[in-house]
Parts: sequence; structure tokens; C-alpha cells
Amino acid sequence: MRKIDPEKQEVRRRHILDAALSCFAHKGFHGTSTNEICAAAGMSPGNLFHYFPNKRALIAAIAGEDRRRMTVRFARLADEDDAIAAIEALATELLEQSADPVYARISAEIAAEAMSNSDVGSLFAENEALIKADLAALLERGIGRGQIDPAIQPELAATWLIALADGAVGRALMDSDFKASTHAPVLLRMVRRFLEPPAG
Amino acid sequence: MRKIDPEKQEVRRRHILDAALSCFAHKGFHGTSTNEICAAAGMSPGNLFHYFPNKRALIAAIAGEDRRRMTVRFARLADEDDAIAAIEALATELLEQSADPVYARISAEIAAEAMSNSDVGSLFAENEALIKADLAALLERGIGRGQIDPAIQPELAATWLIALADGAVGRALMDSDFKASTHAPVLLRMVRRFLEPPAG
Repeated sequence: MRKIDPEKQEVRRRHILDAALSCFAHKGFHGTSTNEICAAAGMSPGNLFHYFPNKRALIAAIAGEDRRRMTVRFARLADEDDAIAAIEALATELLEQSADPVYARISAEIAAEAMSNSDVGSLFAENEALIKADLAALLERGIGRGQIDPAIQPELAATWLIALADGAVGRALMDSDFKASTHAPVLLRMVRRFLEPPAG
Repeated sequence: MRKIDPEKQEVRRRHILDAALSCFAHKGFHGTSTNEICAAAGMSPGNLFHYFPNKRALIAAIAGEDRRRMTVRFARLADEDDAIAAIEALATELLEQSADPVYARISAEIAAEAMSNSDVGSLFAENEALIKADLAALLERGIGRGQIDPAIQPELAATWLIALADGAVGRALMDSDFKASTHAPVLLRMVRRFLEPPAG
């Protein structure tokens, strides 16, 4: 009987996922065949199917990864005393992620796929709802500490913060002048002024 | 010889474009065949080809329409004395447009198509550059009149205002709670606080 090494399995899973992400970014989700993913990952279809039985399993794994990455980010922010500084740190990190062309292209592919495929749509809508709840909790905490304007409604404010992060992805695709380093200060001004309590 | 009635032609062109937009919103740009557009528009392929020789011509027309709509909006704002009020009016209008599911779906389709097809990408990148220039001019005017914080760099601020508008499209697709009427006041707070000069 062959022994299964979970660590080795995870490395392989990760390797396939990276190959798939790169294919999707270049040729789109629909434009990529499983054979192309196999070629990019350097493995046989049988081997690939063992990890991901179909493209839907791959996109579910991408959604799961997105969610895990956000969970880690929010967990790290739990130690930050200043709620606005926490949100600024998050905004900076998301901006750097958006400016990565592979990430931006995958995001656009997913948005398009989410429309025509309600399974994919639900996966990413669930992610969005979780992120919104985490962000609203962070805003709530800041309001409780007097760091954030109590006139802010956490859920609604969270929605617009997500819109900003998502809008950055669009700029990375459509605007060749868009660079994380150049555009970060203006984003932070927007976030800070939006959230801080009225002066005086 | 048959007489060409330009008004009638324009009505037909508009009719085909609406049929194509509805098809693209439902089945995606790639998922829609010319036959389906013909069926939706109620005309023969020969007749359709007379107006739009291929799908690329249709998407070029969509980009042209987007641009014309924005030109009309900016022209209307030229009479507005208060630059922040002008940008708020624009933001409100764009938010209502984003909340329209057909518009949101088409936008996501175009973003995906812009990645894999550089012709489409260039068309919409040109639109974005023109909108950014118009918006930057509006911000510049507001700075000159003392209505907008002179610390703002018009081009960078314009980029983030576009990101907000574009991010609203994503929320319309991903967040079932997203409604223009509920979310407008928070957007306007964000815009106003971002732009106004420091108090005092």
C-alpha cells in the first residue's frame, strides 16, 4: 500500500493551482482546456483529476484560497489598536495584490464567470459576504474606541471599502499608469478621511 | 435607387445594439453567436452585417456609446459652479447605471474580453484615459475656485474616483444587498470628504 504524505500532496495541489491560475490569466477560464493545465503543471490528466476532478473544482479551490488569505489578514489585524491604521494596512496590501497582473486578470475572469455560472457566483458572493462582515466588525470596534466616526454604518461603509479595493483591480487592467506605489497615498487619504470622526 | 433615411438607420443600429447587449449580458460575449443576435433583433444575418460586419464592430459601438454618454455628462457638468456638487452628481448617476444588472454584466464581460483581446482592451483603455482627463480637469477647476483641497493631485484623485465607480459595478454583481438608493449617501460622504479642503 502506498503511503500518502499530506505535505507532499499539498505541494502538488499548490503546484497545479498555480499552473491553472497562470493558464486562466492568459487564456481565460473558458479558453483554457484541462490538457493545457496538465501541460503547464507537467502532469498527466489522470494525476490532475486525482486532485481536481474538473475546472469547477479548480475555481472552488481559488475561492477557498482567496477566503483563507483574507482570514489570515483579518486575524493579523486583530492585534492592531488603531482601527483606521488596521484598515489602511489592509488597503495597502490589497492594492499591492490588485496591481499584480495575474491577480487582476483572474479577478476579471471570475467576475465574468460568476455571471454565467451561478455556482461560481455563489462561491465568490459568499466570500464577499464574509469579508464584508469581518470589515464591518473592524469598523464597529473602531467606532467603539472613538477612532471612527459613529455616524458611519459599518455594513455600508464596508461595502464601499470593498468597492475601492475591487476598483483598483479594474484600474490595473485598464490604466497603464496605475502603480501601487504611486496610487497608495491617495487611497489612504480617501480611507482615512472617509472614516475619521469629525474634527473638533 | 433606394433612399437612405439616416434617422431610420440610426433607430435600426440602436435596435441591433440593444439586442446584442442583452445577448452579451445573458450569455457572455464569447457565448453569443451572431445568429442569436439576429434572432434577438428579429433580422437576417445579411441585414445585421450591413450595420455591424462582426462582433468586434459591435463591441466598438458599445465603447463609442459609453464614451458619448460620458461626454454628454461632462458637458452638462460644465455649468455647475460647485465642483464637488458636480462630481457628486456624476457619482450618483454612475451608481444608478452600475446598479443596472445589464450594465454590470456587460462591464464584467468587457473587462474579461479586454484582457484576452488587445483591440477591445485598447478601446476601453482609451475611454478610461478620456474620462480621467475630463475628471482631472473638473478637479483642477475646483482647486482653482478653492472648492477642492489643493493638496489633491487631479490625475491620481480622478483614478480613485473611477475606481469607486467601477467598484460599484462589482458590488452590483457580487452583493445582493447592493442598491443604489441605500448606498448612495455613503458614496457621497466618501467623495466629499476626500475632496474638500481641510477645515478651518
